[in-house]
Amino acid sequence: MSENKYSVLNTRVHNVDGHAKVTGRATYTFDVTLPGMLYGKILRSPHPHAKILKIDYSEALKFPGVIAVVTGKEDTLGVKQGIWRRYKDLCDEAILTVDKVRYIGEPVAAVAAVSEEIAEQALDLINVDYEVLPFVDDPMEAIKKDAPLIHEGFERNVNVTRQISWGDVEEAFEEAEYVREDWFKLGGQHHMCMETRAAVANYTPDGKLTIYTSTQSAYYHQALLAGVLGLREGNIRVLAPYVGGGFGGKFELDGAQFCASVLSMKCCKPVKVVFSREEDFIASKRRTPMYYYVRTGVKKDGTFCAREAKVFTNGGAYTGMGATALYLTGFFHSFPYRWKAYRYDGYRVYTNSLPSTSMRGFGAPQAMFCSEQQIEWIANDLGLDPIEMRRKNGHYEGYEVPGQATIASCGLDQALTAIQKWKTSKGKLPKNRAIGISAAGFMSGGIFNWFDSPYSFSSAVVTINHDGTVELHVGAQEIGQGSSTTLAMICAEALGVKLEDIKVHMGDTDHSPADLGAWGSRQTLMAGNATKMAAEDAKKQLLEFANAKLGFNIIYDLDIKQGWVYNVARPERGMSYYDLCKEALRGKEGQRIIGRGFYTPRRKGMISPAYSYMVQGLDVEIDPETGYLKIHESVTAHDCGQPINTLGLIGQLEGAASMAIGFGYYEYLPVEDGKIMNPNLVDYKLIRAPEMPSCQVIEIDTYEPEGPYGAKEAGEGLTNPHAAALGNAIFYATGLQMKEAPIRAEAIAKAWKEKNEKAKK
Amino acid sequence: MSENKYSVLNTRVHNVDGHAKVTGRATYTFDVTLPGMLYGKILRSPHPHAKILKIDYSEALKFPGVIAVVTGKEDTLGVKQGIWRRYKDLCDEAILTVDKVRYIGEPVAAVAAVSEEIAEQALDLINVDYEVLPFVDDPMEAIKKDAPLIHEGFERNVNVTRQISWGDVEEAFEEAEYVREDWFKLGGQHHMCMETRAAVANYTPDGKLTIYTSTQSAYYHQALLAGVLGLREGNIRVLAPYVGGGFGGKFELDGAQFCASVLSMKCCKPVKVVFSREEDFIASKRRTPMYYYVRTGVKKDGTFCAREAKVFTNGGAYTGMGATALYLTGFFHSFPYRWKAYRYDGYRVYTNSLPSTSMRGFGAPQAMFCSEQQIEWIANDLGLDPIEMRRKNGHYEGYEVPGQATIASCGLDQALTAIQKWKTSKGKLPKNRAIGISAAGFMSGGIFNWFDSPYSFSSAVVTINHDGTVELHVGAQEIGQGSSTTLAMICAEALGVKLEDIKVHMGDTDHSPADLGAWGSRQTLMAGNATKMAAEDAKKQLLEFANAKLGFNIIYDLDIKQGWVYNVARPERGMSYYDLCKEALRGKEGQRIIGRGFYTPRRKGMISPAYSYMVQGLDVEIDPETGYLKIHESVTAHDCGQPINTLGLIGQLEGAASMAIGFGYYEYLPVEDGKIMNPNLVDYKLIRAPEMPSCQVIEIDTYEPEGPYGAKEAGEGLTNPHAAALGNAIFYATGLQMKEAPIRAEAIAKAWKEKNEKAKK
Repeated sequence: MSENKYSVLNTRVHNVDGHAKVTGRATYTFDVTLPGMLYGKILRSPHPHAKILKIDYSEALKFPGVIAVVTGKEDTLGVKQGIWRRYKDLCDEAILTVDKVRYIGEPVAAVAAVSEEIAEQALDLINVDYEVLPFVDDPMEAIKKDAPLIHEGFERNVNVTRQISWGDVEEAFEEAEYVREDWFKLGGQHHMCMETRAAVANYTPDGKLTIYTSTQSAYYHQALLAGVLGLREGNIRVLAPYVGGGFGGKFELDGAQFCASVLSMKCCKPVKVVFSREEDFIASKRRTPMYYYVRTGVKKDGTFCAREAKVFTNGGAYTGMGATALYLTGFFHSFPYRWKAYRYDGYRVYTNSLPSTSMRGFGAPQAMFCSEQQIEWIANDLGLDPIEMRRKNGHYEGYEVPGQATIASCGLDQALTAIQKWKTSKGKLPKNRAIGISAAGFMSGGIFNWFDSPYSFSSAVVTINHDGTVELHVGAQEIGQGSSTTLAMICAEALGVKLEDIKVHMGDTDHSPADLGAWGSRQTLMAGNATKMAAEDAKKQLLEFANAKLGFNIIYDLDIKQGWVYNVARPERGMSYYDLCKEALRGKEGQRIIGRGFYTPRRKGMISPAYSYMVQGLDVEIDPETGYLKIHESVTAHDCGQPINTLGLIGQLEGAASMAIGFGYYEYLPVEDGKIMNPNLVDYKLIRAPEMPSCQVIEIDTYEPEGPYGAKEAGEGLTNPHAAALGNAIFYATGLQMKEAPIRAEAIAKAWKEKNEKAKK
Repeated sequence: MSENKYSVLNTRVHNVDGHAKVTGRATYTFDVTLPGMLYGKILRSPHPHAKILKIDYSEALKFPGVIAVVTGKEDTLGVKQGIWRRYKDLCDEAILTVDKVRYIGEPVAAVAAVSEEIAEQALDLINVDYEVLPFVDDPMEAIKKDAPLIHEGFERNVNVTRQISWGDVEEAFEEAEYVREDWFKLGGQHHMCMETRAAVANYTPDGKLTIYTSTQSAYYHQALLAGVLGLREGNIRVLAPYVGGGFGGKFELDGAQFCASVLSMKCCKPVKVVFSREEDFIASKRRTPMYYYVRTGVKKDGTFCAREAKVFTNGGAYTGMGATALYLTGFFHSFPYRWKAYRYDGYRVYTNSLPSTSMRGFGAPQAMFCSEQQIEWIANDLGLDPIEMRRKNGHYEGYEVPGQATIASCGLDQALTAIQKWKTSKGKLPKNRAIGISAAGFMSGGIFNWFDSPYSFSSAVVTINHDGTVELHVGAQEIGQGSSTTLAMICAEALGVKLEDIKVHMGDTDHSPADLGAWGSRQTLMAGNATKMAAEDAKKQLLEFANAKLGFNIIYDLDIKQGWVYNVARPERGMSYYDLCKEALRGKEGQRIIGRGFYTPRRKGMISPAYSYMVQGLDVEIDPETGYLKIHESVTAHDCGQPINTLGLIGQLEGAASMAIGFGYYEYLPVEDGKIMNPNLVDYKLIRAPEMPSCQVIEIDTYEPEGPYGAKEAGEGLTNPHAAALGNAIFYATGLQMKEAPIRAEAIAKAWKEKNEKAKK
């Protein structure tokens, strides 16, 4: 590694909240205890589809210790809400349903009691009369003409459609010398946050609501709760204590937040609702299951001509972030390649099952599983080097995805080279063992504003205390991804001080400037830009006092680095930053210097201001008899622009890998008759530490002009390539083409057996 | 009352935190519960003066549930601290003492355990070897040459001296045609906050300390804790939840805060320390007891010539705020009159008793008890009307107290007239019943900066949300006095919005701009000025957008009132404030408008930017046999400049009256051999509701140019006149001259008996 030109950036730093977490001192929503607090529990629908005729909770109310029971009809405004606030017809979920239930696990009523146990027991005393309705839980069935209608006005249960296209697809297919089409099936995946959904709502008699909750975006929840509770946005304060993971599942309004709030308003007491692990499984949404049809036409030399994709997603009962996932899967399905013509038709279909939403990768892991396997098979069919075929058709710096995006930085080519080199170095592998490769790319935050926020996307305020410590107020949210560390580092670098000088404040709508929160890999770039701007604003103000104090005979450029304020031309001439802070404070008559920064992307196409690129290699051994996979090694060639915290970066990439391998292989979430069959950690298989391969990261050096110090996305995008890389390794080791994710050992063993039987015939 | 020119000010408003308090939903430090929290208890000295030879806590540590024991020697830096940070020799208190104890109740060690009961029991298992030293608990004894020395280097135990003088006193006494001298004795008084001292300290392994505490100034405690704990100021966060009273006793560092912090740092766990009522009595300081010598010379026509005062205060073991009280008693002893020559010599004397400090009135109640009785007696001796004599010599608008203060607004004359009128209206009263009158004045915050704060005295930040709600961040502290309501009203008035649009944030050093806190009646004027300036700054920015939007053909003045933004010349032409907020937010690309304001007094003399005036009348019936007083009526003529919340004003004045009557009559705090004899609410007599007289307030209309909207102090100054008014009523009813406060029924009965026995002789 060349000498680091930065003082703070591009170093290995332990997370600023690491101490609290490893010592168990970090407090999560679960840990919040308020005087007189009650405990809430939610009664959930046992039916995938039914009308609610009557709810009788009189017995529950008589149960000693029960304080209140609420239902959607009696105790809520019945507002149908959704995170796509700009589009009213996509706001379809009341959370505490008013008239009918549309999935097993949907909240029907909620109880507040003096203990969690009493609340739980009281649920059994609530009598709900249902009129059971015919249901449908598969999108290919639900879209049929005679399928049961889940929402009024949505013919054939089509919730949303999305189309992306450029070029003349039919003409391009005609030019193609080879065309291949495949159908794929992608399963759901559970976010599996260490911390289940949780909220402590505290409604006070002055008409204000304070809510502690596990959230990816305090601001979203403030605004969403205002809408459903009929409160003024400013009268709601959302506090996010430490958050135990989000992964795309914690920025919509959830049952814990809503029921805790409604109960708190009814009782005028604090109410805590914490989901059990089972509740979290059956009623907190999931990664969107999809049926994926892909048709691809190429020249014999491997030049990509045309691609057509049709996707039917299992939307479940409500929209949530599904509309965005529907768009993004279609967009990323084109990634990271140049197609002369491209056409994507996506259908999000309502079904009577758990609603589907965003999850780390945001539609891209599904897209890449299909695309990157099919590309491998095509190269194979044509006898081409798949890596070279990828290189030939890949994005490059300056490329424009027609009508969609401009690629300002792109390390794909170097990443392919790095992985090619690694692959070559491995030589010939033993039997049943092969290397699978997959490329991918991802966005650095979304440009779209479906939430209809009046605020800039990210904002930061930097305040300098007299002892040189810095209050960095951001609306961005730490959810375990290391944002507070990243932003502290950017602030320290920009201001020229030490990391320990920075105090990061987030997760409190009363004190944080506006920010859309942690989703879509937006924070490093967007909140990072806002933070850099705020710190630079503060530094500029400080340097005015340094100029006055140092009194050089001509105007020199001054700068600050690691606490030393100096003449850039004569770095030994300067003064201490800490002395300067005191000086400036006196100069400003005791007023702290405040710097402000904000960022909203513009002139950056439809999707995102910047794109990361990655090529993933996996060395996989397959036991064809059992289907069991052993991943010997993972090598990632990764372009995230300028790394901020190189240690945190590796942690994020390893985390993404574990989730991606789960998506591709382990994490099966079967639904039968609308019911999730394994809502627990015994039957739902997560990867464990001994199963994780050793992970090597090859950092590809690029500079993203739109990112702070050249930084862009890291840690979400890497959820995209692994499933396909696994599939490709299986293909080379066994010849099998696995078209369903998660691939699952049973499926491999079964396919192997069928293949052998076929061969015998 | 004439038509109110304000929309929000000068109205009767319930406190913005009233709902929370009357419904029991307000959470105090006592209510804070953190995961894994321990409970701390403090071992206190049983001796008024002793060396600590050895502390053996081995048995305590063995007691099940005990986690840690700390002592000053082993677990602290032994820093001697004090709130007069600018003067190191006045920083004399280590809190957890290192070498010797100087008063009964002084902290010697502290225990942290899993329950309060265990911590309490463990105290008995700590063995302390003391070498008992001779002690002295009276200042007149302590100042003698052979008295035991309490602090090294303080000869004759003189802690601080203060002198105020102007004019040639001896010459002026020679001019006088009548001279009178008296000695008075003033007792201590307990602050008796509803909430005892309390702190929950949470030291985390990242080296940061968060402390929830009952405080009058979060900033002071942040800075003081940094000094004693060796932490960086910025690494300490002080949070003040609701605070149950302060009255001058909660802005120094106390044992709860210090011991909780030291224990938390040792255990690396949260630790809660809450004083019992007895602890609060014996170890939380008190109003300063004083011996007061007053010599006054006047002309026969009542013109005041000269006054000389010598004061010896019982400082107790440490300085605290005693140095300020020593100065202020001397300054206010001249109030509210013009003296040709004045000389005050104050001696604060260390004794082996509970330290004395500031308390509501800050030295003035003691001064007025002496001055206003002596003036009454002089008028009587000379056959003059005491009210007219006061008027003749009183302060007036524009008067300058030589070298001390400039009086910019003064309603004394009108107040005397109002009370004169009331007195006349009462006619002749029955036997043993008389009207007592006393005048007084008080400051509106202190100009002095003994704390050596680098920050402006008050600051405010106003942030405007898109829904028109306003975040008002101030460092000022609500302690029950209604500050949050006052500041919200000033903000609403200045911005032109409704009171319910304002959200007040205070009591959090990480989020609040700097402010010295709630003491010396500073907040309405200082934080009020900062708030007004911040709101006006925000309004100015908003109006730029209104100008652009409304597009009048010439530039008109625009203003905002009650949510209507309008052309001042044509008020019907305008737009809604709420629409304007949205417009401005779009104009600023999603950035909220932020207004800033600050205030530090300047060019306002030595003491305070402004002075309130008041004349108190009491209609009192005395049973001379028992000495029992019945106060039939209280009438206060009161000049606080422009009232902000007229309802809150009355509450503050009634509260002051109850405390003042306590000081003058009920609240006796006897100390024998260094020991407080009645540290409980059975033996220490507070006034109860049925004993409170009906209180009438006559508002004197003045305008204080230095105050926000003309406002100045209210609610502390009224602690000053009652004791003298009681004494004067007793004088007229019985002829007795009571020279000791509290006057006490027993003392009246005894004096009456002696008088009668003397008469018989």
